[in-house]
Amino acid sequence: MSSGAPFRVGLLGHGTVGSAFHELIEQRADAIEAEVGRRPEVSGVLTRSRGDFDDILERSDLIVEVMGGIDPAFDYVMRALKSGRHVVTANKQLLSQHGDELQAAATGGGAQLRYEAAVAGVVPAIRVIRESLAGAHIERVHGIVNGTTNFILTAMARTGASYDDALREAQELGYAETDPTEDVTGKDAAAKMAILARLAFGARVRLDDVPYEGIEHVTADDIAYARELGLSLKLIGSAERIDGGISVMVYPAFLYAGHPLAPVSGSFNAVTVESPAITEITLSGPGAGGSQTASAVLGDVVSAMAPPTTQVSQPADLPIVSDVESAFYLYVEVADRPGVLAQVAEILGLQGISIKSVVQRGIGDDARLVMVMHPILESKFRAAVDMIERLDFVRSKPRAIHVIEEVFE
Amino acid sequence: MSSGAPFRVGLLGHGTVGSAFHELIEQRADAIEAEVGRRPEVSGVLTRSRGDFDDILERSDLIVEVMGGIDPAFDYVMRALKSGRHVVTANKQLLSQHGDELQAAATGGGAQLRYEAAVAGVVPAIRVIRESLAGAHIERVHGIVNGTTNFILTAMARTGASYDDALREAQELGYAETDPTEDVTGKDAAAKMAILARLAFGARVRLDDVPYEGIEHVTADDIAYARELGLSLKLIGSAERIDGGISVMVYPAFLYAGHPLAPVSGSFNAVTVESPAITEITLSGPGAGGSQTASAVLGDVVSAMAPPTTQVSQPADLPIVSDVESAFYLYVEVADRPGVLAQVAEILGLQGISIKSVVQRGIGDDARLVMVMHPILESKFRAAVDMIERLDFVRSKPRAIHVIEEVFE
Repeated sequence: MSSGAPFRVGLLGHGTVGSAFHELIEQRADAIEAEVGRRPEVSGVLTRSRGDFDDILERSDLIVEVMGGIDPAFDYVMRALKSGRHVVTANKQLLSQHGDELQAAATGGGAQLRYEAAVAGVVPAIRVIRESLAGAHIERVHGIVNGTTNFILTAMARTGASYDDALREAQELGYAETDPTEDVTGKDAAAKMAILARLAFGARVRLDDVPYEGIEHVTADDIAYARELGLSLKLIGSAERIDGGISVMVYPAFLYAGHPLAPVSGSFNAVTVESPAITEITLSGPGAGGSQTASAVLGDVVSAMAPPTTQVSQPADLPIVSDVESAFYLYVEVADRPGVLAQVAEILGLQGISIKSVVQRGIGDDARLVMVMHPILESKFRAAVDMIERLDFVRSKPRAIHVIEEVFE
Repeated sequence: MSSGAPFRVGLLGHGTVGSAFHELIEQRADAIEAEVGRRPEVSGVLTRSRGDFDDILERSDLIVEVMGGIDPAFDYVMRALKSGRHVVTANKQLLSQHGDELQAAATGGGAQLRYEAAVAGVVPAIRVIRESLAGAHIERVHGIVNGTTNFILTAMARTGASYDDALREAQELGYAETDPTEDVTGKDAAAKMAILARLAFGARVRLDDVPYEGIEHVTADDIAYARELGLSLKLIGSAERIDGGISVMVYPAFLYAGHPLAPVSGSFNAVTVESPAITEITLSGPGAGGSQTASAVLGDVVSAMAPPTTQVSQPADLPIVSDVESAFYLYVEVADRPGVLAQVAEILGLQGISIKSVVQRGIGDDARLVMVMHPILESKFRAAVDMIERLDFVRSKPRAIHVIEEVFE
């Protein structure tokens, strides 16, 4: 794909997210150029102490706004949109209070306004509602859109800790700020739900329209009692159509085990969208963090860069690797006599296979070994199984099944 | 937003998905016109017995291909793309065997090729990989991309049923076809993983490159033993970068409880994408069904219609409803004496509130009631709580927390 002129990105704000974004876009510039035919470059950076907005605007095709707050961000973003520059922002205050004016400015200026990073970290709720479900009638959006509170509630449920202790742990680990008010009162989640509701229902919804209730008064007792009833506690943002209008609220809520948001734990965020045609879609992933938010911002920048006809570039010729490492479960029916496990273990050992757990079951004609192995090259494991199958005390073909070990969390 | 000319959609195939799509696009035409400024209309339908492809192509801006199979779908889609018509297809065979040629034809003709519905039902894996993660280096994609096998494995785990019995149940309920071979052998999942891997890694991957293993030989014993080790069994499609190449495979695998795909049950599909910058994103929702697939196709059609600057239309003035129905948990510290529960229950009853469950805990100064109510208007519930708070045996302010009852599955 031929290269065009560089795509110039003006960056407003250079804190945690801004600097992570700056690093990420430079690191990914080659790959993005290969994909969409233009190379992104940062044309200017505005911080409290350096840079001039007018100068940066002049030299940019797109403005990334990660400075936060209303003033002067609102003025800058409005001017950028009116002048036809696309804007990518992670600023939930701005969008939840001035979404309509910003959208009108974007339409007037023929510019794109994108804000995936403002809502749910890397969870692509905005894109899915705006694009995948463009043809669907959305009935309801439920979200866990604040990672701090989900971390605190998960810690309380796991350890029986009090709210105060769990909050302190969250602060020590960097999941809560020194002043956690915006998060724990539900105000942060309310701003995000205003943005989601506006998009899902095409309706005027501002932060002031969203009543919110936080988690400050939740006790370890509540969580323990509700757990006996099969319920888990989350801070839920809820937006739904009801009686010809809409309801948008944030409140702590108990969820039954079958609810798609019930398994979402720690600082993760998740959003469930319900529509008659699709039943429901659930999206989950890490809540905001510097590099995660930067990645969501970059996704929006690339979307704004790429004309819609540009898709997968010339495919690369990556070799297909067929022999990979994997952990395995192995089930062997054996004769019930001494030394059986030792012989099986010796064969595994000769192939360099280490046993993670083993259970012997049954007696006599019903004896069997159930084992889980640590990861090993599949060819070595298959060779061991062939040898085990030929042992005289093995009564039927051994059954092997992959085991996937979770790397994250 | 002003209206342009109608956007003409030629429909190839009118089976379950085709007819559901036809119905859905007519039902949503007004809303889509309001959103993107053009009204979609079906300009022609091709079935085995009616319609002429050349005639339909001539009268269409975009072709929806839901006929399935390679011949004549491949020829039709190639001709549409070369002539500059966008194509939306749900045809996994076609894409997994001829993805490169199709993409080259799209690029050559300046047309879009979209295929969200080919991979994971309503789960927007293609869009998220292509767009949200355009700036990310994807390391691994894990998916449950076949609803039939996940339904069977879930049934086996829940009831201890044999593979044959669970398959029969799936067939009776319409989750498996009379000839389930493509699904249970893993071939269907392999085609989908070839499509996902090609997109995630920008690499040439075809169905023939993907080794697959099915679930036909899994026994109820395996599932039961592994459960004791905290493992659940899924048919996993795996695509990852490894040793400078890639590995793409389909196999049954045990997952530990912490794995994001472990809670995915029944006929649901899910895809987890891992990248250093974002950690991981998981998307889940119903696997293919007529209306779900049609909805995914329509999402692609709307994306192809809309120029990227067109976003939220003029917002509607939907009233904000503040008093909504909800279920509640209520915790009341009470004096330990007879008649306490009766008086609380009477107040609830007077407000029309029905109690779902109640537990009395503790004795003496430690006595308390823990209740869960059926859904009721929030105003009525709050009125009851105010009255309960004023009862002389209530020792502190009652604590009320929402309860969300899962509607689906």
